Amino acid sequence: MVIGKHLIEEAAARVGSRVRLTPTIEIEPGAFDNDAPITLKLELLQHTGSFKPRGAFNRVLASVVPDSGVIAASGGNHGAAVAYAARVLGHRAEIYVPEPTPALKLKRLAQYGADVVAVGASYAEAFTASQQRAEQSGALAVHAYDQEEVVAGQGTVGRELERQAPDLDTVFVAVGGGGLIGGIAAWYARRARVLGVEPESCPTLARALDAGRPVDVAVSGLAADSLGARRIGDIAFSIAQRYVERVILVSDEEILAAQRLLWDRVRVLAEPGGAAALAGMLSGRHGARAGERVGVVVCGGNVDPSGFRPTYD
Amino acid sequence: MVIGKHLIEEAAARVGSRVRLTPTIEIEPGAFDNDAPITLKLELLQHTGSFKPRGAFNRVLASVVPDSGVIAASGGNHGAAVAYAARVLGHRAEIYVPEPTPALKLKRLAQYGADVVAVGASYAEAFTASQQRAEQSGALAVHAYDQEEVVAGQGTVGRELERQAPDLDTVFVAVGGGGLIGGIAAWYARRARVLGVEPESCPTLARALDAGRPVDVAVSGLAADSLGARRIGDIAFSIAQRYVERVILVSDEEILAAQRLLWDRVRVLAEPGGAAALAGMLSGRHGARAGERVGVVVCGGNVDPSGFRPTYD
Repeated sequence: MVIGKHLIEEAAARVGSRVRLTPTIEIEPGAFDNDAPITLKLELLQHTGSFKPRGAFNRVLASVVPDSGVIAASGGNHGAAVAYAARVLGHRAEIYVPEPTPALKLKRLAQYGADVVAVGASYAEAFTASQQRAEQSGALAVHAYDQEEVVAGQGTVGRELERQAPDLDTVFVAVGGGGLIGGIAAWYARRARVLGVEPESCPTLARALDAGRPVDVAVSGLAADSLGARRIGDIAFSIAQRYVERVILVSDEEILAAQRLLWDRVRVLAEPGGAAALAGMLSGRHGARAGERVGVVVCGGNVDPSGFRPTYD
Repeated sequence: MVIGKHLIEEAAARVGSRVRLTPTIEIEPGAFDNDAPITLKLELLQHTGSFKPRGAFNRVLASVVPDSGVIAASGGNHGAAVAYAARVLGHRAEIYVPEPTPALKLKRLAQYGADVVAVGASYAEAFTASQQRAEQSGALAVHAYDQEEVVAGQGTVGRELERQAPDLDTVFVAVGGGGLIGGIAAWYARRARVLGVEPESCPTLARALDAGRPVDVAVSGLAADSLGARRIGDIAFSIAQRYVERVILVSDEEILAAQRLLWDRVRVLAEPGGAAALAGMLSGRHGARAGERVGVVVCGGNVDPSGFRPTYD
């Protein structure tokens, strides 16, 4: 077990006010047909619209950054976070993205001043190219989830949440590569039960727990752009084995319903991956307990509003 | 001066947890090209997506409600809030709306179980019809802004905000009929300077302050659906004369820019009226002071996301 509370405290001190203390809101019983109040951690209000800057800042600040700057592979939330952190800290950033990356995402990366390199047909190919480039340039690689400083940085979400809502019994966290749930589960260390939520179509942690080791899975579906890591990180896996009570799988329909409820009842517009944790909670598949105090991390809001259809019913 | 701190404390106690304690978030310097941090009060996360339930609950709970229930005129945020409060409290609600009210708004009102009556070409005609109906049925009328209990209820936003951010020097509040700013200015009573922000095309309070009394104004523009009251309420006017330092007028372009900044930098999707206060702050027209600690109330989020165009630049 490499990540403990002390590393997360260190990360919080190191990153300081470079990330936002994101608010929580307590949602009353009934808003989502829930029996008990739910504390939402509104981490989508973080810089760049997701929790990712926490880990990126911690990794970069804990390292010696060469003139060639930092490098990452991601056309999504991680890439934006690394580009943002590099700009704030005055470093060059190269972000490798797969060629099919949508124009809107490229525009976001360019907005943060990163050099964007589109290469390969898939994330895996872009990642490999970024590794080759890092070897050549000496740039500091910031992994999307499987680095100690990254996981510890994401763990600061748990640290904040516990201060904001000290009495939670259960915390729901969406899982992609596992950086967020690894950090949060390491923070709580069973003081609250931490439950992972994955799309049925991206069951990275569920399959790994079944197999007893990280294994590759096929990924697809509504939330694949943020939760579609092909394999859980080794660090997150070892933490999850010890500290994650279980993983709940949710359908795309459940994710979409949770996303709509967040807008209709709270005016929070989350990306599908950001609504997944709520979908897991609402599924009831975790074995709800009477009087249970529940926290749900809404971890990202990088969705194009013009493509969102509210229901109001 | 009828509304004072004690009536707002009473309102807060009376309404209790029927409204949400909406969170604040501190936004760092630079996010909006601002020099100092800004505390956003995220009141758009309130039930029904605006501050209006605070006043509606306070009015209804402070009254004896007959079997004929409650009645209001509004196709917008006020109507939704009265319908919501009535449903929660187990009363019948009749909501009068002008005939041109969009289908989406009618659907929202129906969602809360109200009887919706579409009558007249304008808000004024619907309002007159609602008054006639109230005289006949005996239903309790809930005014959109010009009732003591309504203004005191909206004042609970100020009470919460001062607890959440005790050191604010200046608070920006959008003005329509004046219920919100009346309540907030009455709460602060100059402990912070309270500034009103109005669209140039709905200058209800600005014209009244110029004239020395409430006067009718023509209303139009981007935020008219939430801020387009034709005349400031008498209660709000008398409070504003004493406690509102000045009114800042903003253009539709400034409102739209603020709305886009809230999404691009914070993933808060506000309605135009909900972004107006930030537009006023960003205009710099209030005479910013060095080291000033600023609060901005984001008062509504009833916007159709599918019609919103982010910029990301």
